[in-house]
Amino acid sequence: MYGAPPVARIGIFDSGVGGLTVQRAILDALPGADTLYLGDTARVPYGTKSADTVTQYSLRNARFLIWQGIDLLVVACNTASAVALPALRAALKVPVLGVVEPGARAAAAATRSGRIGVIGTPGTIASGAYQAAIRALRPEAAVTARACPLFVPLAEEGWTEPGDEVVAGVARRYLAPLAGEGIDTLVLGCTHYPLLKEAIGAALPGVALVDSAETVAAEVRGLLGAEPAASAAPDGREAEHRFYVTDAPERFLAVARRFLGRPVESASHVDV
Amino acid sequence: MYGAPPVARIGIFDSGVGGLTVQRAILDALPGADTLYLGDTARVPYGTKSADTVTQYSLRNARFLIWQGIDLLVVACNTASAVALPALRAALKVPVLGVVEPGARAAAAATRSGRIGVIGTPGTIASGAYQAAIRALRPEAAVTARACPLFVPLAEEGWTEPGDEVVAGVARRYLAPLAGEGIDTLVLGCTHYPLLKEAIGAALPGVALVDSAETVAAEVRGLLGAEPAASAAPDGREAEHRFYVTDAPERFLAVARRFLGRPVESASHVDV
Repeated sequence: MYGAPPVARIGIFDSGVGGLTVQRAILDALPGADTLYLGDTARVPYGTKSADTVTQYSLRNARFLIWQGIDLLVVACNTASAVALPALRAALKVPVLGVVEPGARAAAAATRSGRIGVIGTPGTIASGAYQAAIRALRPEAAVTARACPLFVPLAEEGWTEPGDEVVAGVARRYLAPLAGEGIDTLVLGCTHYPLLKEAIGAALPGVALVDSAETVAAEVRGLLGAEPAASAAPDGREAEHRFYVTDAPERFLAVARRFLGRPVESASHVDV
Repeated sequence: MYGAPPVARIGIFDSGVGGLTVQRAILDALPGADTLYLGDTARVPYGTKSADTVTQYSLRNARFLIWQGIDLLVVACNTASAVALPALRAALKVPVLGVVEPGARAAAAATRSGRIGVIGTPGTIASGAYQAAIRALRPEAAVTARACPLFVPLAEEGWTEPGDEVVAGVARRYLAPLAGEGIDTLVLGCTHYPLLKEAIGAALPGVALVDSAETVAAEVRGLLGAEPAASAAPDGREAEHRFYVTDAPERFLAVARRFLGRPVESASHVDV
């Protein structure tokens, strides 16, 4: 192994399992990198909690990952990205990437009409972070935001088929007002929502759906200075992926595969 | 006020707003009693968390209420009642009442066929507490249990009308297997579910619905030694009701009235 390039270690945290959709995009973009994933499952969800509470939890999560030695932190949780990034950046020496700015950038680039929709948890929407990030890039944009609290339990139940009457009914109820606003681009502002992409698309035909996971993965690759070709695992070394949760791992493991798109064999219970 | 009977002070906690349906029944049964309600909204929901975590949170909640001086503690949360009662009773000197045993007693009394259904959060159902409590009373009972994670966000969204296509669709999906088991009695094993009583009843025609709030309220009255007539507010004194939450109060206040059936003017943010 002498002379092998140093392997990047990426820390990722989320309030629960949703951030695994972001990790999935990172693994696809950087197959050689090691990752540490922390799901704060004892305190999930963040989306209904106040900014102060979410910031406190985020700092604890970051401290645990930093202590394990990471080169970069990805906040794979929209609520935490919306409210806790300044505190995290002030406290940490490694680069900190959220999911809100990349999502806003992708939406600002995708829209033609300038009418953009944003959906997320009550916490993310109430923070106004997406609305502000989009307007900073396109001051003339008309942004309509809507909290969709039933989407998370639908994704966790695995009720995601667009033809399912319940799924379609919930999607129509939440999204009809956005269709009425004439949006041409919708930001999926919650890491659970990519699992409902088809159902959301069916309720908003012709609207571009922005999932920030891929934009985040591209930025991670940029920050780590790795060319796509160079980011393959060197010398056949298997990248190491560790999973930590703050509550009992069983429920996390039961749904993790659906979110990550590959098996998750085990997760360790930690108290942060 | 000299010579006035001492006024009972009842402490009630839940993971969030759901316990207000239990408090509502207690206020109806004991209009003269003072109450302290603590909603652990920073840690809600308990239903997806492990027994150890829920027990730790329950002890912290109880400590806060005991410190305020209460004569009796009502654990108005099914998950905490299912897993934390032994620890709470070992730690506290005041009587501790949960909602599981009263619900099980009411169901065992109501059933004729001996086929009983139980619905609740994943945590409550996985604990097996209702199933065990019912079988302890009626060993021959056939109990079918089912977690219904979408019912809580439906109740919090205010989507509760039985004629609503989404509400009816979710209710049918969760409850059809229970109808197939031929149950004649269903325990609403989550304090949010009384708001969906009509929709649940429509999906299970002819099935008796057991909401443990009223049984709990009757037991509280029994434990405080108050006759129904004696429990009216003495001398025109207004009973005092205080509300505490562990996260910012806005969201709690926005939905509290729907659960309590009367206005909640204010709630204090506390760190337990």
